Amino acid sequence: MELLPGTQQVFEKIRSVLEEVYRLYGFLPLDTPVLESSEILLAKAGGETEKQIYRFSKGDSDLTMRFDLTVPLAKYVALHAGELVFPFRRYQIGKVYRGERAQRGRFREFYQADIDIIGDGKLSVYHDAEIPSVMYEIFTRLGLKDFVIRLNNRKILSGFFSWLGIGDKTQDVLRIVDKIDKIGREKVIQEMSGIGVSDEICGKVIDFIGFRGSNEEVEALLNRYAGCNELYDEGVRELGDVLRAISSFGVPKEAFAVDLSIARGLDYYTGTVYETTLLKHPEIGSICSGGRYDNLAEYYTDRKLPGVGMSIGLTRLFFILNEREYLSGQFKAPADVMILPMTEDMAPAISLSSRLRAEKIRTQICLEEGKFKTKIHYADRLGVRYVLFLGEDEIRSGMYALKDMQTGEQKSLSFEDCVKTVRAMQNEVNNSPIVIME
Amino acid sequence: MELLPGTQQVFEKIRSVLEEVYRLYGFLPLDTPVLESSEILLAKAGGETEKQIYRFSKGDSDLTMRFDLTVPLAKYVALHAGELVFPFRRYQIGKVYRGERAQRGRFREFYQADIDIIGDGKLSVYHDAEIPSVMYEIFTRLGLKDFVIRLNNRKILSGFFSWLGIGDKTQDVLRIVDKIDKIGREKVIQEMSGIGVSDEICGKVIDFIGFRGSNEEVEALLNRYAGCNELYDEGVRELGDVLRAISSFGVPKEAFAVDLSIARGLDYYTGTVYETTLLKHPEIGSICSGGRYDNLAEYYTDRKLPGVGMSIGLTRLFFILNEREYLSGQFKAPADVMILPMTEDMAPAISLSSRLRAEKIRTQICLEEGKFKTKIHYADRLGVRYVLFLGEDEIRSGMYALKDMQTGEQKSLSFEDCVKTVRAMQNEVNNSPIVIME
Repeated sequence: MELLPGTQQVFEKIRSVLEEVYRLYGFLPLDTPVLESSEILLAKAGGETEKQIYRFSKGDSDLTMRFDLTVPLAKYVALHAGELVFPFRRYQIGKVYRGERAQRGRFREFYQADIDIIGDGKLSVYHDAEIPSVMYEIFTRLGLKDFVIRLNNRKILSGFFSWLGIGDKTQDVLRIVDKIDKIGREKVIQEMSGIGVSDEICGKVIDFIGFRGSNEEVEALLNRYAGCNELYDEGVRELGDVLRAISSFGVPKEAFAVDLSIARGLDYYTGTVYETTLLKHPEIGSICSGGRYDNLAEYYTDRKLPGVGMSIGLTRLFFILNEREYLSGQFKAPADVMILPMTEDMAPAISLSSRLRAEKIRTQICLEEGKFKTKIHYADRLGVRYVLFLGEDEIRSGMYALKDMQTGEQKSLSFEDCVKTVRAMQNEVNNSPIVIME
Repeated sequence: MELLPGTQQVFEKIRSVLEEVYRLYGFLPLDTPVLESSEILLAKAGGETEKQIYRFSKGDSDLTMRFDLTVPLAKYVALHAGELVFPFRRYQIGKVYRGERAQRGRFREFYQADIDIIGDGKLSVYHDAEIPSVMYEIFTRLGLKDFVIRLNNRKILSGFFSWLGIGDKTQDVLRIVDKIDKIGREKVIQEMSGIGVSDEICGKVIDFIGFRGSNEEVEALLNRYAGCNELYDEGVRELGDVLRAISSFGVPKEAFAVDLSIARGLDYYTGTVYETTLLKHPEIGSICSGGRYDNLAEYYTDRKLPGVGMSIGLTRLFFILNEREYLSGQFKAPADVMILPMTEDMAPAISLSSRLRAEKIRTQICLEEGKFKTKIHYADRLGVRYVLFLGEDEIRSGMYALKDMQTGEQKSLSFEDCVKTVRAMQNEVNNSPIVIME
């Protein structure tokens, strides 16, 4: 995804909102290498991953480009465990690389924005509520509407399956069931039968995970099976704690929901799991997913490091918002003010620009020679809101001709009033949403 | 370079200063791909570059990882020339990749922070003054001391050499002369003789480029040869304009100096050239270099696109500042406040954390169960300045026990006073320099 500069600026704006919120919650930044020895990155990888990765040799090194931010995190935490303070809270916004066949909205290099909290030996279930709350705050600040963070607990599914006598097939059942939205009920029954699950049991599984209702109704359903299995009960208890804590974090009821069908494909999730969908755009799939895992770094250390995390597919999300024209046009200008010097000597324009910048006003000087009209056109094409004309009169009087390019209005203002005018516009823009969904 | 999280946070702080200043000057962000087809990235590359790059095949693609940010800029500008507004001002802070042999302070992936201004057909020489002024502001804001932006103009050197009758050897002479600080006068004379430059001419060249003095003294020297050559005169005129404009931009005399020995190795600089050195650490070499070029994208388009730019070797600079302990320790904490809940119910702690975050206070809750001492130790190890104890009494009264971990002082404060106290600390930290050089 290569963007035009104005659009790139909107992307950077979104990125800065993510960073700001992550920091407000006490997450530390991490910046792991893109290139790692293949031995490290592929310690755990299976066939599908191997096919997608960029791997090559240089001299004696067998190198791979990272394909997610979780494996590098595991290696980092294992390597630096002695120097880190646990629970360790980190965010990372970085590019990952996958050699997928090019497709609209799928890129071979794309940003992921991850947060994780890693404990040393243990980690309170409250963190399972904190993580989606952080994401809720981000999406809300961005201006995203009608999104729902859907959650489940893998222990509920595993416990339920054990009780049904298909516990030895949990991984396979989860894998098949995970596809129900894509392939439909019939296909799922068929595939389940293929691994030796009877139609009756399969029906129970589908009725359970296919249940739709309010969080209270789902909890009532869950209570109906209470005591069926120890793991099941543990999962139900955890899910209840997480739901209550999410409310404490201020996430409104309509923004999160239990969905017993969520299992997440990856095999390392062991408790809470999340997906986030846009209600009006289910076709997009999950824009932010994750979950709780028992052991982050088992391939790199004997230390048990449980954790919980979520990841935003930032490039994909941005691509969709841009394509559907949900992005505000207000963040594209490179400057707030363009100074148009009307004298040959540039010194007064230069020193005025320094004064404006000292007031945190993004200022550009039109330094090129050329016709007046060309200069105005330059400011206009860049989307700069205010043009300040600086001729002999203005320099002498200290009253500047400030033109609002949006309204066409032009005023003669003191330096202080110029600053006030521009700052009012800055505040208005900064307080307006980046994403505009009706 | 893989950093511990606290140090990584200092790096991010520096990066944000760069971005803030670039934006204040109206530069637009760019984010070009890391992976490009080899054909594009290597259109111009010579033998040395080819040896260092990461190049590999995947399916039908012959891919290369970018080794600088200039070649991708050239390709980008050529590709999007019709949609860009010229002069086009862009910044890019991104990783580049070179397979150099590992060395202290040299990494195979490292950040460069580039700014460039590209004109369409022409570009005012004032931009040659603006670029180093931006860099001056960055270094000053960071707290860097005793740095000098040294500049020269390649036209002066080329003109002077033509006049001496060695114009046909300009490239070679520049290349040899560029090494004078490394290999010394004798070796330069020897190498020059090897390409057919007499000792007498060589002596003149060295006396010219080896001249040291104030900017006025250098200008006096330059005037002594006035009229010797048209190109020379043009260079002297440009250099004078740039020097005067740099002063207008508010850069003090001691922070920039003409240095006639600067030629820059790369063959595409055609006018002003820059290097930046730390006076007390000449061994580090240039921390920020660049120059003016006639034609950015000649390999990709027929359009003539002159430009001027500078690049900070950000990873290397950071590595040195960190190694020599010039980095402030004030920016390492992940949060301003750590809430220690003293009740079983986490809800009051969670809602207090939301209120603090709404006041832009970075807040973390100690969500783990454990001994009081362990929790205090957790806050202390993370370097969090304030701990807020939240028990039944505090919840009832709305008066919070806030402990300053630096002074050990503990006060009972209302919410508003907690915010005031923490904000005063935030302001103090934010206004303190990141780099501390005595």
